[in-house]
Amino acid sequence: MVMYDLIEKKKKGLALDKEEIEYVVNGYTKGEIPDYQMSAFLMTVWFQGMNKEETYELTMSMMRSGDVLDLSNINGVKVDKHSTGGVGDKTTLILGPIVASLGIPVAKLSGRGLGHTGGTIDKLESIPGFKTSVDSEAFVDQINSIYMAVAGQTANLAPADKKIYALRDVTATVDNLSLIASSIMSKKLASGADAIVLDVKCGNGAFMKDEESAISLAKEMVEIGKSAGKNITALVTDMNEPLGRYVGNSLEVYEAIMCLRGEGDERLMEVSKSLAAHMVVLAGKAKNVTEALVMVEETVNNGSAMKKLVEFVTMQGGDAGYIIDPSLLPKGEIVVEYRAKQNGFIEKIQTELVGKACLCLGGGRRTKEDVIDPGVGLYLNKKIGEYVEAGQTIATIYASDMKKAEESLIILEEAYTLANKKIDGTNKIIKCVI
Amino acid sequence: MVMYDLIEKKKKGLALDKEEIEYVVNGYTKGEIPDYQMSAFLMTVWFQGMNKEETYELTMSMMRSGDVLDLSNINGVKVDKHSTGGVGDKTTLILGPIVASLGIPVAKLSGRGLGHTGGTIDKLESIPGFKTSVDSEAFVDQINSIYMAVAGQTANLAPADKKIYALRDVTATVDNLSLIASSIMSKKLASGADAIVLDVKCGNGAFMKDEESAISLAKEMVEIGKSAGKNITALVTDMNEPLGRYVGNSLEVYEAIMCLRGEGDERLMEVSKSLAAHMVVLAGKAKNVTEALVMVEETVNNGSAMKKLVEFVTMQGGDAGYIIDPSLLPKGEIVVEYRAKQNGFIEKIQTELVGKACLCLGGGRRTKEDVIDPGVGLYLNKKIGEYVEAGQTIATIYASDMKKAEESLIILEEAYTLANKKIDGTNKIIKCVI
Repeated sequence: MVMYDLIEKKKKGLALDKEEIEYVVNGYTKGEIPDYQMSAFLMTVWFQGMNKEETYELTMSMMRSGDVLDLSNINGVKVDKHSTGGVGDKTTLILGPIVASLGIPVAKLSGRGLGHTGGTIDKLESIPGFKTSVDSEAFVDQINSIYMAVAGQTANLAPADKKIYALRDVTATVDNLSLIASSIMSKKLASGADAIVLDVKCGNGAFMKDEESAISLAKEMVEIGKSAGKNITALVTDMNEPLGRYVGNSLEVYEAIMCLRGEGDERLMEVSKSLAAHMVVLAGKAKNVTEALVMVEETVNNGSAMKKLVEFVTMQGGDAGYIIDPSLLPKGEIVVEYRAKQNGFIEKIQTELVGKACLCLGGGRRTKEDVIDPGVGLYLNKKIGEYVEAGQTIATIYASDMKKAEESLIILEEAYTLANKKIDGTNKIIKCVI
Repeated sequence: MVMYDLIEKKKKGLALDKEEIEYVVNGYTKGEIPDYQMSAFLMTVWFQGMNKEETYELTMSMMRSGDVLDLSNINGVKVDKHSTGGVGDKTTLILGPIVASLGIPVAKLSGRGLGHTGGTIDKLESIPGFKTSVDSEAFVDQINSIYMAVAGQTANLAPADKKIYALRDVTATVDNLSLIASSIMSKKLASGADAIVLDVKCGNGAFMKDEESAISLAKEMVEIGKSAGKNITALVTDMNEPLGRYVGNSLEVYEAIMCLRGEGDERLMEVSKSLAAHMVVLAGKAKNVTEALVMVEETVNNGSAMKKLVEFVTMQGGDAGYIIDPSLLPKGEIVVEYRAKQNGFIEKIQTELVGKACLCLGGGRRTKEDVIDPGVGLYLNKKIGEYVEAGQTIATIYASDMKKAEESLIILEEAYTLANKKIDGTNKIIKCVI
């Protein structure tokens, strides 16, 4: 097989077979196929697309390029949840304890944040003492004992995807459904879960800006998951404003605790509960989502989910005192308020800019080497559709450095748009793809 | 300017402006733009195409990347002729003396052959003593004195094209009209002629296999030439069989001499005279092609063109004795005949295979480093539409090595197809694009 011929084949719009895709993925990962041929190939894929079979084979080839985790020592149906990334997305911290408290194993390998989106691992590490480097034996034992563990990705998962993604990133070949779907799914399938709930974010703070493309991506990933023999569901959820009212690591842990206490943001709870309910269904613990939602409501209302969080944090070395009294969690001491200059309704929030306003405080990473300041972040006093009078606070900045707070304020001012008429908030759950 | 954005722009089908194209060409030539971005870009061009302005700017940027020859010291209108390459194409050897004998300067920089097509320089070097390395002063002096000089390309012409072509060659991005046209024209325009006649070969022995694409290429190149302010004409000519009956370096010189003596292959003469006539018109020496053709006929018939060839060969160090008696020219001593196994008419000749049959005798180069055996080659006793009886010779192999002759025979047998009915020969001049 010769790479040149495969570029030519795809250029003509023909489908590649399993062996051909395997040749491309392995050859490139081993360095036998040069970057310039791979980027030409990726561009042909951008123009000609890949059919279902090709997308599936690409996913599986990338998955097989590294470790494929074996979670068979964990009892029960392992359900994983994956978000395509957004701002203020702390659902894992909420639904993890909910699902685990219902006796369903939550075995989560999470990443760190980069750019304007945060990572679960960074959020958990803002709890004093919390350890995210757990060896695989301890990981399995912990799940078998308390149904929940979250660890940083240390395994060599889908290295082919890592190398291909880095090339796509510099050759304008990121924005293709098959390539996006296979990239996400290769890592998910390598993580070893039995069933997967996908949270496909959609809107100006997400990778997918419009509903149509988000739904297409959801369908593409569900197809791949099914072809790989997994039970899989995708929810398309709104990211035209940050999820919940807090953005920042310890601030998001704080908000998650409030949610588990029943005192959280309504829309954040709606998304978290829906995702949790779908996980419960896929785990076979409820017949349908309605039944699962009742179970989810109950485990929050009777405090079981909250207890599970305390248990989980303790087990991973965290100081449970901070969970029981979340006001103790780190919080930037410099408080700057972004106040309205006129009366009006919040019409639009440029969500990515809110993420950047947090990033510039030190709440995220510009490069992989950056160290995160866990207590900094934002509280969004006002969200889409809410009324604000001149002089009232739209958002509150928690910083540890006055200069950074001022920079953040400038970004926030750009992020918000006010209007004279009330705008309805967007639907939080846009679509469910099964 | 950032290369990523230009890939993205072309990917969306937008046109790049002059500065953007210049940035791409210069950045890549200097090594500031990596291969993998350039190949992704070239693939977007393959899919989205380039408009006239883009193609022109690409040509000019590549032209400016190296030397642009100044032939202003040569008196008169300098007309260049360029062929897109074929098998048995010795028209330069015929039309050069014809045009020069009419007092029109022929300043020709020629290349060497590679693969199945030959090069004018190699052909001339099969004349004992002939020198093709002429310094620029001697080159100009010779043309001012006898109107004709042919030298090997020593100048640094369009190095950007050289680098880009090498990348296209391994990334399946050769077959795009704008890229092909700009590649050829960047070198032609750098060669400094005032006017250009293009011979766009079309058929199974040429780069362009069908008339439609050959005509499109001709139009594209004529457009570029006009935009660059040159008088330019393109003829699309047939390459569904070798041009003339001889293939091989000294054998083609032999055939060219026969043509200038008025004893050559009719169709070869038709193409050579037409190209010559168009050169005469562009040089302003005739009002139209009809008038020019009369002049061309005359200079051949009265022996002036033949005298010019002798003068030219002598001037460049060649032994004129071989021109006066061309039977003295080197000729492979091992003669093998390819004979018909049955009666029939020649239906088809796979011209590229004929080129390869000559190549394998040592008459061409597989790699740039190969040394050419000047006397080897083929005589095509039978061409398309001609009748052959079982046992009669279809083609004659002149070799210097029996094993190579046998290899060549096997290739020739594959190249010819016989039929029961007579097939009309194809038109030699398919179209003229002005």
